[in-house]
Amino acid sequence: MASFFETTRRVEFCETDMAGIVHFSNFYKWMEQAEHEFFRSLGLTIVNPQEGGATIGWPRVSAGCRFESPARYGDVLTVKLMLQRIGVKSLTYDVHFSIDGRPVAKGTMKTVSCTVTEQGLTSIPIPDEYLNQLSEYTGD
Amino acid sequence: MASFFETTRRVEFCETDMAGIVHFSNFYKWMEQAEHEFFRSLGLTIVNPQEGGATIGWPRVSAGCRFESPARYGDVLTVKLMLQRIGVKSLTYDVHFSIDGRPVAKGTMKTVSCTVTEQGLTSIPIPDEYLNQLSEYTGD
Amino acid sequence: MASFFETTRRVEFCETDMAGIVHFSNFYKWMEQAEHEFFRSLGLTIVNPQEGGATIGWPRVSAGCRFESPARYGDVLTVKLMLQRIGVKSLTYDVHFSIDGRPVAKGTMKTVSCTVTEQGLTSIPIPDEYLNQLSEYTGD
Amino acid sequence: MASFFETTRRVEFCETDMAGIVHFSNFYKWMEQAEHEFFRSLGLTIVNPQEGGATIGWPRVSAGCRFESPARYGDVLTVKLMLQRIGVKSLTYDVHFSIDGRPVAKGTMKTVSCTVTEQGLTSIPIPDEYLNQLSEYTGD
Repeated sequence: MASFFETTRRVEFCETDMAGIVHFSNFYKWMEQAEHEFFRSLGLTIVNPQEGGATIGWPRVSAGCRFESPARYGDVLTVKLMLQRIGVKSLTYDVHFSIDGRPVAKGTMKTVSCTVTEQGLTSIPIPDEYLNQLSEYTGD
Repeated sequence: MASFFETTRRVEFCETDMAGIVHFSNFYKWMEQAEHEFFRSLGLTIVNPQEGGATIGWPRVSAGCRFESPARYGDVLTVKLMLQRIGVKSLTYDVHFSIDGRPVAKGTMKTVSCTVTEQGLTSIPIPDEYLNQLSEYTGD
Repeated sequence: MASFFETTRRVEFCETDMAGIVHFSNFYKWMEQAEHEFFRSLGLTIVNPQEGGATIGWPRVSAGCRFESPARYGDVLTVKLMLQRIGVKSLTYDVHFSIDGRPVAKGTMKTVSCTVTEQGLTSIPIPDEYLNQLSEYTGD
Repeated sequence: MASFFETTRRVEFCETDMAGIVHFSNFYKWMEQAEHEFFRSLGLTIVNPQEGGATIGWPRVSAGCRFESPARYGDVLTVKLMLQRIGVKSLTYDVHFSIDGRPVAKGTMKTVSCTVTEQGLTSIPIPDEYLNQLSEYTGD
């Protein structure tokens, strides 16, 4: 049973700020991108058009991050995504960022399975095609 | 006859980079936002849903900018938008950025009137409701 | 005694994503910008160069946000910043986002007083010039 | 003699906008990132601290882009960077973006060799360590 997904990410110049370090808002984007890459690694997609015009999507319900040490231009971050919980409609992840073993940031993120139409977003139970693939990543 | 639209914009911390100045990519966003604010000032909108599901939108065809002096955190930019040309389907603007009279950047941007559907974007002649409002901003 | 700081913010086109709503990462930027605007309203600055080359800055230690309903292009968000706690070296805020009274998101953010040099960031007790101004915003 | 540098880039969710396509401002970031990757491939760096506190940097003088067809979430862009001209103090690039052979955008960008200090940016002749590496990419 796989227990986490790992990827890397190089810090771009435009992601730094005048303090000379990565602007904190980028870590939230990187958490999302790690989730999307994780889905892709399972043959799943985060944006899944259905017949009839609706789309299945995975908007964020909440996301938080604690910053432990700075990351700088050119650094290569290791991003470790752990699927902590599969709920009826939601997924909860922990995400750890590090550089050569030095902890940089620890985040957590909850996403919810939704249908997206022009009228808005409606949460739905996680479709089976996702559940089957995701369940091997937890002890559930 | 009005000949230009002017607005201001304060530089945010997250818009700076490790060189201590505004990252150049922000000027393109600010050009777009000046156009949108200009539209709003005329009672027009850049995103205009139509009956039947299509939307009238104004994607960019091209945009360029020349950078003359740096802008820094907290600076208040004066953004001057000049509608240079109304084409059959497109609008061309010049945008001048300055701080207290010091030139900072000069950009140009061309946008095109489109219908946006799930199938994609199709350029269309500028609808009359826009033409009527916009034409007073040029010598055409 | 003032108990909160309030500002507004219009959603820009570039802040939306293909789901048609504001991308969640923008709320973290907006929390930071509300803090900076709050500082500015008190005559303080978030980036404060000192004699000798160091700068006093306020990096984020942690930030989290819960998303309750979507915001869309053109919406005007009310951003309410509440200074919940003044620590020895840190400030903790709650930030509530709403549109015409409808709750959109609730965030919390902790920032720490630091000296920023080329060698890095070092946390310091909040300087008196800040403490004096900030203390009127809490019951401490 | 090598004549261009090529890399790829996958479109992230946060780079799309409510029109369902990549927001145009991202192409300018990607041009810069392609330049930085090109430098890195030559063993050079875009941010080069010198003895005495100054840094050699490469800010943008100008950048423009023409958009030919949309890019969408998940698309993998081919980014082809061509060093068109080595001036005394500046580099001029053309950058072509495509997806599976379909042209998406064509940009041009001019960067200038500078020393960056707390006092500001000063253009300088391109240092020899850069010239030696870069000259093999043009017919100069």
